[in-house]
Amino acid sequence: MSSTTGQIIRCRAAVAWEAGKPLVIEQVEVAPPQAMEVRVKILFTSLCHTDIYFWEAKGQTPLFPRIFGHEAGGIVESVGEGVTDLIPGDHVLPVFTGECQDCAHCKSEESNMCDLLRINTDRCVMLSDGKSRFSIKGKPIHHFVGTSTFSEYTVVHVGCLAKINPAAPLDKVCVLSCGISTGFGATVNVAKPKKGSTVAVFGLGAVGLAAAEGARVSGASRIIGVDLNANRFEGAKKFGVTEFVNPKDHKRPVQEVIAEMTNGGVDRSIECTGSIAAMISAFECVHDGWGVAVLVGVPNKDDAFKTHPMNILNERTLKGTFFGNYKPRSDIPGVVEKYMKGELEVEKFITHAVPFSEINKAFDLMLKGEGIRCIINMDG
Amino acid sequence: MSSTTGQIIRCRAAVAWEAGKPLVIEQVEVAPPQAMEVRVKILFTSLCHTDIYFWEAKGQTPLFPRIFGHEAGGIVESVGEGVTDLIPGDHVLPVFTGECQDCAHCKSEESNMCDLLRINTDRCVMLSDGKSRFSIKGKPIHHFVGTSTFSEYTVVHVGCLAKINPAAPLDKVCVLSCGISTGFGATVNVAKPKKGSTVAVFGLGAVGLAAAEGARVSGASRIIGVDLNANRFEGAKKFGVTEFVNPKDHKRPVQEVIAEMTNGGVDRSIECTGSIAAMISAFECVHDGWGVAVLVGVPNKDDAFKTHPMNILNERTLKGTFFGNYKPRSDIPGVVEKYMKGELEVEKFITHAVPFSEINKAFDLMLKGEGIRCIINMDG
Ligand SMILES: NC(=O)c1ccc[n+]([C@@H]2O[C@H](COP(=O)([O-])OP(=O)(O)OC[C@H]3O[C@@H](n4cnc5c(N)ncnc54)[C@H](O)[C@@H]3O)[C@@H](O)[C@H]2O)c1
Ligand SMILES: NC(=O)c1ccc[n+]([C@@H]2O[C@H](COP(=O)([O-])OP(=O)(O)OC[C@H]3O[C@@H](n4cnc5c(N)ncnc54)[C@H](O)[C@@H]3O)[C@@H](O)[C@H]2O)c1
Ligand SMILES: [Zn+2]
Ligand SMILES: [Zn+2]
Ligand SMILES: [Zn+2]
Ligand SMILES: [Zn+2]
Repeated sequence: MSSTTGQIIRCRAAVAWEAGKPLVIEQVEVAPPQAMEVRVKILFTSLCHTDIYFWEAKGQTPLFPRIFGHEAGGIVESVGEGVTDLIPGDHVLPVFTGECQDCAHCKSEESNMCDLLRINTDRCVMLSDGKSRFSIKGKPIHHFVGTSTFSEYTVVHVGCLAKINPAAPLDKVCVLSCGISTGFGATVNVAKPKKGSTVAVFGLGAVGLAAAEGARVSGASRIIGVDLNANRFEGAKKFGVTEFVNPKDHKRPVQEVIAEMTNGGVDRSIECTGSIAAMISAFECVHDGWGVAVLVGVPNKDDAFKTHPMNILNERTLKGTFFGNYKPRSDIPGVVEKYMKGELEVEKFITHAVPFSEINKAFDLMLKGEGIRCIINMDG
Repeated sequence: MSSTTGQIIRCRAAVAWEAGKPLVIEQVEVAPPQAMEVRVKILFTSLCHTDIYFWEAKGQTPLFPRIFGHEAGGIVESVGEGVTDLIPGDHVLPVFTGECQDCAHCKSEESNMCDLLRINTDRCVMLSDGKSRFSIKGKPIHHFVGTSTFSEYTVVHVGCLAKINPAAPLDKVCVLSCGISTGFGATVNVAKPKKGSTVAVFGLGAVGLAAAEGARVSGASRIIGVDLNANRFEGAKKFGVTEFVNPKDHKRPVQEVIAEMTNGGVDRSIECTGSIAAMISAFECVHDGWGVAVLVGVPNKDDAFKTHPMNILNERTLKGTFFGNYKPRSDIPGVVEKYMKGELEVEKFITHAVPFSEINKAFDLMLKGEGIRCIINMDG
């Protein structure tokens, strides 16, 4: 038991006081974990578009001050009442969605959309008592998706922590908390391309590149990357992308271009853009008879997915996935093992690193569209 | 070898001379089968909505005179050059779609949409020479979907014939040529409900009842029948339907009614109506996380399938199927065996029978919506 157990911990956190304004490193107070909660010392965290999206808070109710951050690796400091499968010292990845292991979704082999711990971007407090564990001089600071990893210590529901191999380097595997697992899982768990098949990946951001990596690992013969941003193309080759299509280069719909390139359509497509136009193209570019399209990107509130029903009748399959269909506690430790065995390359996603004190540089890089993942070292 | 081999056969056929006008029993000449063709003596045929649809020819190019009919059972009379897997005397079911066993679809385990022999409702002739095998006093009569079973003899491409167990009663298994296999296969091959699961079936015509039969055989715990026609409900109980919903009885969309009945949605749904509204409801009524919706009904030309992409993202699956995903030659003999073993009840689909000379009565019954299948006995 560490000397801090049961005590408030004072530590540094990067607080977002206002929408779109640089984070400020503050001294915060982190309360001890309550029932079914775990206090985690974060060692490394990385920045994902979802943090930026809620930090910019365009078109949403602004929820500030807030501690963002949801891709991270850390070590258990102490556990609350009822926590039996984690002890201080365990290495963990916090995840923005959870696994209670008790609801219909957790009991289903197919779903990871836990009724209790499914992502909730509006919730700013802990589930058990509706309160925040973060405060500055008594004033509560909001949580973010149950993780708030831009803090040296954070409190997380036990259902949102994956216990991983302690030999895994946290400065690498921290990126498996969100985007990389999402894209990789979309391919290997949902699209499931067979060896030798053709795969189209829409969107070559972190999620799309991870989807391409999944196709590469599955032995796809052709991986067609589709992006509106030509700058994404060169870097995507490392992730197995063999051909590129920029919808802007064609007058015809991109699904027609792809169908022509592939004798009727690809075997699998994975959409990782959030654009409704790309979702429809991704569906319509798969081959009739056996093609499977998987949607990953988060759409806008008033988007409509629209296609002619014959495209469905002709034996195409359309599926959506959330967090790559991985159950955080049951499956993410296995994804870390895949990395340890060299079956999934994580290093190539990591293009930058900054000390915690310079976290706003990570924001600048992502806003400029530079690189893929920037690791933030909490010890700096 | 029969004495008619290589000869023109003169026999009775029910000819549709004009759209929507009663068929006329005529003496027709049936030419011998050419390469890869088979001449079949039809013993029993039944009437399906698709015959009615093309006979009414509303909103299509009328193609008359034509011999309709595509659900049937018969015996091989003679075979053309190159036909090696059928010999005179074999019992066969003609099918409106084929299996060349050579194209990418036939070679795929998942598809049955043969490139060569896929249904073509506009084709009125044989593939090999672009000519009809039917004539009356030298004037050619059009074929229909490669089967034209409303004739005592017909010529069919070998790829559109399923060779079945000769012990199977043709007056029963003839209905497995189209609608019944389509609905049954949609459930057992595509939706694949697990034992104990909940299933919604939209449309309780022959196809929907066969889909319900598939759910019953799969051990579904609840089978919810959905139809706008309340008269369909009572008879559907025999096919395993346990509950009924008439969309007309509710102010809310039927998907909401079903979600409420089933704690969030059914595990599987199968749409067998051809109505785009039902297709959308069938998709939106499946449970998030694991629900699978299967579309069977043939939509109108300008229909649009429209849903919010979050319905897809929430881990629902949407699939279309054609002829229940059965490959005619490889799989239909096995469906007949299922009937022979009592695993699929066919008798309850057969509600009427008429002699060939009274084939127009079968049309009247279907137009009035009476019964499910009417068997037409060619020997009468
Ligand atoms: N489902 C989940 O669990 C989950 C988890 C994380 C991220 N996401 C979503 O995945 C998507 C991708 O995330 P990311 O971090 O890789 O984003 P990103 O912004 O880095 O990459 C998206 C890429 O898509 C491209 N793009 C946009 N519209 C396009 C179009 N019409 N055609 C082709 N390319 C187009 C952009 O140019 C960009 O390169 C986002 O919608 C994100 O919200 C989902
Ligand atoms: N895909 C294939 O291979 C294949 C093969 C045969 C038939 N079909 C199609 O399957 C469909 C059903 O065929 P069938 O012979 O059983 O037809 P049918 O007309 O006997 O039955 C259709 C039923 O759907 C009901 N219905 C119509 N709109 C509805 C709605 N919005 N909500 C609920 N119920 C509604 C009707 O009242 C009717 O009872 C047709 O579209 C047909 O073209 C497809
Ligand atoms: Zn749960
Ligand atoms: Zn993320
Ligand atoms: Zn074929
Ligand atoms: Zn039919």
